[in-house]
Amino acid sequence: MSEKIPTELTIQEKASLTTGRDFWSTSALAPAQVPSLILTDGPHGLRLQTGDTDHLGLAASVPATCFPPAVTLGSTFDVSLLERVGAAIGAEARAQGVAVVLGPGINIKRSPLCGRNFEYLSEDPLVSGVLGSALVDGLQSRGVGASVKHFAANNQEADRMRVSADVDPRPLREIYLRAFERVVRTAGPWTVMCSYNRINGVTAAENRWLLTDVLRKDWGFDGVVVSDWGAVTDRVRSLEAGLDLEMPGNPGNSIPHITAAIESGELDEAVLDESVGRLIDLAAKTQPATGPSDLDANHALAREAAGKGIVLLKNEGKVLPVRAGTSLAVIGEFARSPRYQGAGSSQVNPTRVETFLDEIRSLHSSGPVDFAPGYTLVADAVANAELAAAAVAAAGKADTVIFMAGLPGSVESEGFDRTTLELPASQLELLGQVRAANPNVVVALVGGGVVELPFADDVPAILAAWLGGQAGGGALADVLTGKVNPSGRLAETIPLRLEDTPAALDFPGEHGHVRYGEGIFVGYRWYDARKATVRYPFGHGLGYTDFEYSELEIQARDDGLRATVKLRNTGAVAGREIVQLYLGLPGSAVARAPRSLAAFTCIEMQAGQETEVELLAGRSELAYWDTRVDGWTVEPGSYEVAVGASSRDVRLAGNLELPGDNVQLEINEETTLGELLADPIGGAIMAQVAGEALGGITGGGSDEDGETASMMATMLGSLPIGRLVNFPGSPMTRESLAQLIGGIQGARAAAAAGQLPPEYATE
Amino acid sequence: MSEKIPTELTIQEKASLTTGRDFWSTSALAPAQVPSLILTDGPHGLRLQTGDTDHLGLAASVPATCFPPAVTLGSTFDVSLLERVGAAIGAEARAQGVAVVLGPGINIKRSPLCGRNFEYLSEDPLVSGVLGSALVDGLQSRGVGASVKHFAANNQEADRMRVSADVDPRPLREIYLRAFERVVRTAGPWTVMCSYNRINGVTAAENRWLLTDVLRKDWGFDGVVVSDWGAVTDRVRSLEAGLDLEMPGNPGNSIPHITAAIESGELDEAVLDESVGRLIDLAAKTQPATGPSDLDANHALAREAAGKGIVLLKNEGKVLPVRAGTSLAVIGEFARSPRYQGAGSSQVNPTRVETFLDEIRSLHSSGPVDFAPGYTLVADAVANAELAAAAVAAAGKADTVIFMAGLPGSVESEGFDRTTLELPASQLELLGQVRAANPNVVVALVGGGVVELPFADDVPAILAAWLGGQAGGGALADVLTGKVNPSGRLAETIPLRLEDTPAALDFPGEHGHVRYGEGIFVGYRWYDARKATVRYPFGHGLGYTDFEYSELEIQARDDGLRATVKLRNTGAVAGREIVQLYLGLPGSAVARAPRSLAAFTCIEMQAGQETEVELLAGRSELAYWDTRVDGWTVEPGSYEVAVGASSRDVRLAGNLELPGDNVQLEINEETTLGELLADPIGGAIMAQVAGEALGGITGGGSDEDGETASMMATMLGSLPIGRLVNFPGSPMTRESLAQLIGGIQGARAAAAAGQLPPEYATE
Repeated sequence: MSEKIPTELTIQEKASLTTGRDFWSTSALAPAQVPSLILTDGPHGLRLQTGDTDHLGLAASVPATCFPPAVTLGSTFDVSLLERVGAAIGAEARAQGVAVVLGPGINIKRSPLCGRNFEYLSEDPLVSGVLGSALVDGLQSRGVGASVKHFAANNQEADRMRVSADVDPRPLREIYLRAFERVVRTAGPWTVMCSYNRINGVTAAENRWLLTDVLRKDWGFDGVVVSDWGAVTDRVRSLEAGLDLEMPGNPGNSIPHITAAIESGELDEAVLDESVGRLIDLAAKTQPATGPSDLDANHALAREAAGKGIVLLKNEGKVLPVRAGTSLAVIGEFARSPRYQGAGSSQVNPTRVETFLDEIRSLHSSGPVDFAPGYTLVADAVANAELAAAAVAAAGKADTVIFMAGLPGSVESEGFDRTTLELPASQLELLGQVRAANPNVVVALVGGGVVELPFADDVPAILAAWLGGQAGGGALADVLTGKVNPSGRLAETIPLRLEDTPAALDFPGEHGHVRYGEGIFVGYRWYDARKATVRYPFGHGLGYTDFEYSELEIQARDDGLRATVKLRNTGAVAGREIVQLYLGLPGSAVARAPRSLAAFTCIEMQAGQETEVELLAGRSELAYWDTRVDGWTVEPGSYEVAVGASSRDVRLAGNLELPGDNVQLEINEETTLGELLADPIGGAIMAQVAGEALGGITGGGSDEDGETASMMATMLGSLPIGRLVNFPGSPMTRESLAQLIGGIQGARAAAAAGQLPPEYATE
Repeated sequence: MSEKIPTELTIQEKASLTTGRDFWSTSALAPAQVPSLILTDGPHGLRLQTGDTDHLGLAASVPATCFPPAVTLGSTFDVSLLERVGAAIGAEARAQGVAVVLGPGINIKRSPLCGRNFEYLSEDPLVSGVLGSALVDGLQSRGVGASVKHFAANNQEADRMRVSADVDPRPLREIYLRAFERVVRTAGPWTVMCSYNRINGVTAAENRWLLTDVLRKDWGFDGVVVSDWGAVTDRVRSLEAGLDLEMPGNPGNSIPHITAAIESGELDEAVLDESVGRLIDLAAKTQPATGPSDLDANHALAREAAGKGIVLLKNEGKVLPVRAGTSLAVIGEFARSPRYQGAGSSQVNPTRVETFLDEIRSLHSSGPVDFAPGYTLVADAVANAELAAAAVAAAGKADTVIFMAGLPGSVESEGFDRTTLELPASQLELLGQVRAANPNVVVALVGGGVVELPFADDVPAILAAWLGGQAGGGALADVLTGKVNPSGRLAETIPLRLEDTPAALDFPGEHGHVRYGEGIFVGYRWYDARKATVRYPFGHGLGYTDFEYSELEIQARDDGLRATVKLRNTGAVAGREIVQLYLGLPGSAVARAPRSLAAFTCIEMQAGQETEVELLAGRSELAYWDTRVDGWTVEPGSYEVAVGASSRDVRLAGNLELPGDNVQLEINEETTLGELLADPIGGAIMAQVAGEALGGITGGGSDEDGETASMMATMLGSLPIGRLVNFPGSPMTRESLAQLIGGIQGARAAAAAGQLPPEYATE
């Protein structure tokens, strides 16, 4: 890299590139032809601050299209849609001269309590990775860089600046790093943003294993690592770890710190040069500002995205869509005071905002639409008797009640987590009263996270409308009136109770540590493995039409597997189906979820249309992180391939036998007798030399029947061969054991070279 | 210690003391007046082998009283009973010239699948520790040493020789080491046996932290650490870790190894001398052999213990005890082919064995007792139609059916784990047929572990008879006929399903590691915290009488708390009650089980009798392991004190406010603003010097309402003070921050010395 760096640059000049000039921009460096770059928040729309600056979403920002946050985008399962959203955000950013947009956020929703879940896509790493890549592709297609965040294992807000996410290698690689790996490998983000927290004790900003060994060496990332705002404690240690750009910057502090470290020999100047080279590369990628975007088109796209993210959870008796000419009672303050995004750094100043009330009145002009706020948006307020009475009266007079329920904005934000999954008691109480007055209640849920739905069996229809962005009100009206056929799917399980959730007992940790005790069993993987009942499963979502699945075919491919199914829209209207492919491996030698999402695709089909759908699952979806070799291993076996409309609505299933990887493990003192005897070469040698020693261990004994012999074999099989020398009368010594192991290793090497002596031949 | 070691001893002679002479004895060393010591298995009875030797329970051994294994002893919750059992085993051992008996086993039942659970007492560390101490006290009262095992975190048989139990500090200290700590501190065992497995990566036999830092330094253990048989890999490293005696021994291997290490300077001779000193001490404690025990009395004691361990799980319609003169059908091969102990190293050659069939016929001579084996004891056998038909016919003719169900011995043993909690399908099928013929079925469960009970709602009575030892058959007859009023309690939860158990998804681990992902939530702590339904809760057990609880009084004491309740036997017969005291601390700053057992006592009472019962919970039951200070901390707060007859049958509850420990934490760069401002001194100083810096971070902003301000405060409160210097415009530098921290530390030190400047005074 260093050949790009003008040799006349001083250490101070180079150091100035690696720390921000202020809150949102980097320092220019004329001798290196590096301009000042603007970085802004904006995972679902631009937040370019004007005047006062901060990183907490408080100061004013220029108007920009507020697309639906990630919670809603994730529920679309729609790659091309997310590319278009990313491109639209990119175009708006480019028009403002922004170089890098700080998004997307692709952390895994480990617990539904995480305060920032509305900024994340899914509990599943494939969904997070595929959709995250789509957003990056779209954004960068407009000449603006993405910043994939928050790298890594940042799954809570509590103590987020310090807490150590204590995660074992398999969940770390298979769940928490997996989406990042996919985005880095497939979408080439210009930057990756390191998180505030520690990973297994080492803060992300100073975690060389994470930022260099994994990100750059394993995955080939060649972009810039930028710190989350305020994540750096020690600029020198973070530079050594591979953190190129500190943000925001306090140059008066960081530049002298770096300079002094180089002058004292504490820091190698080559380390600084590496980062400087990457920052020069980044600057070279940036493009001149373009003209303004078509904000009407972007608003329409925001409405499309919000509509595709709405999940119809229940529709008993096909109460939806609402019939033309019928009377509606819209209940809930949210109908006129929309919650459409979450709080914190991602807050966008929207170009306009639709309310559901206006939009439903416009789309349902064929019948009366009454409205009653019913409750206020103050958290935990007791029910307001006057508001409630008016709502109940309105409900009693209508054919259908649209009841909007959800969390007030003050309980769902960056910076802190929720402590309960309950809706405000005032809303639940009102819902009960409304149901008594009119059982024909459609509940529309508003919010960035899932909530407990104790009333689920008592109302005919429920939709999750999430946070819809600035056009969310219209999108909900589109779906309720049937203008849009709902097609979103749950990217996150809705549990029955908080106590059922995987991390319920160790979230958010204590005293600076949070143990990810559920391991790989995150989200639906947990509920499935525990055979637990959930309210609505991952991948679930209804529509106004039905799809028939048939003719599953599965083939192995060099890089994974390919499945095809025939899909038919058997209903009366056009619709979009999300076809999901899950894999399992019963009898695996390692812990496995019964089903893990390995591929998905979405397809729009006219009524009556039939087509073939292809699903490709790569080797990376078949492999597990093998701690024996610190790498990905595909286990041989008969994989269960399940294709369906949700994680618990499997329509077709088959099996595919895969040969898997041939993993040869080292033979050493800790190799067990069982493992050694199972090894073709080791077993042959062991049988020749160690029969006597084996006899010495068993010591004769009174094995009266086959069961005793079998139990004994099980116990002996687990004995590490190094222990043989320590038993009384063992003919083996430490020296002869070392010779034995050396002999096996030699024979293995010979076999690998095709020179195995015939007595060890296995066939 | 070394003053006890004769100076003329050679290194070889000293080394010879630290490794066994053969399978069951140590080397004598005349110059040090050390005789050869015999160590034998025997947690529930002596297993002194004759002739051929092994450590797998295969070779023959001298007859000894086979008391009930730990699973049954644990269910008695009876300290004085366990002391008597320990004393009886000690006396039998002494008579045989045995110096050390290898028991008790006090590992926690982490998963019901662990193959060796029958050798362990409970899922609860208090029960394991208190009852383990009672066994040690009894054993050692006869001049024979105990060997508390398997130290530590040995909670499975799978890969037990290598697997690393990866356990976080709190569960390790509060659950897995807790019982060992109690036994070491209160009973002074002569020896502790290290386990085979690793703990957080370090094998127990070479784990200096475990064997020296924790065991000796923290807990004050001054006895001998002996290896489990074959646990040593490297004799020199294990000696350095604090492992005094390797068993069994291969002197020809270990002595030269130690000698060479000392001669090369690799091993300090003082390390060897430490162990030699302890082994000389151990030899000095041993006593000459005594005369034989009264085997009839010991058999009677075995019957008493087995009877008190039987848990009456259900007794609908008071079908038990069986009425005199009624006809019984005894069904199940176990009635004549008893399973009374588990397989492996603990297997005792009993002095006699009772069968249930003989004993029930003897005790129920007033009515006919028909018998049908019903099934065979081969695991997983399909139902035998002929045997089944005969059983169904017998059931149809009797007033009451006694159906014995259980696991065949071949699936429950040291050396491997179970893979299911299901009873054999043949037995379940037969039970269904028998119930159809006669619904009045009493199910008596035989086995060393819990099983799923899918039929629990379909039969009127169920007993857990566990493994009863050589008098188990009589004990069960005693209980069924009412000669003994059942009073055992579940020392282990019976779950509904394997999938509900805490460790279901990570037991027994893979590739050499098992993550204890459930943390402190082991056993009932898990089910309570998850509000999960169980089949029968921890502490549950019925009897033929009832007890009334009243007048709970709770007082704080210097060392914990004292509670008293009035107890009245309101039934018609004498009985024994196990009074249980559980503690909770809602709103704790750390994860807590809703209820943790903090005290229990058992009391025998005549019908109509009333008495006051005292329960003492020490400071150790109130404290949690505080990772901030690596020590035990009692948290201040209002503790919930619940007294009852099981973990889910709370009869009386109250609260006790405790001041708790004053834990002062270090102030450093990672201290958050919130923590600093909450500290009396730090807060005062920070307010003086850093107001401006705080303003610089918030950057003004548009906080339009109180909620925004409150959210901002929450976010800022979590900011580590070290990050302050890295924000643009911060008036703070690395140097001024260091000065600030130094100033706070200085003021704290001054305050501790009574010299705090008045401006920092907190009142």
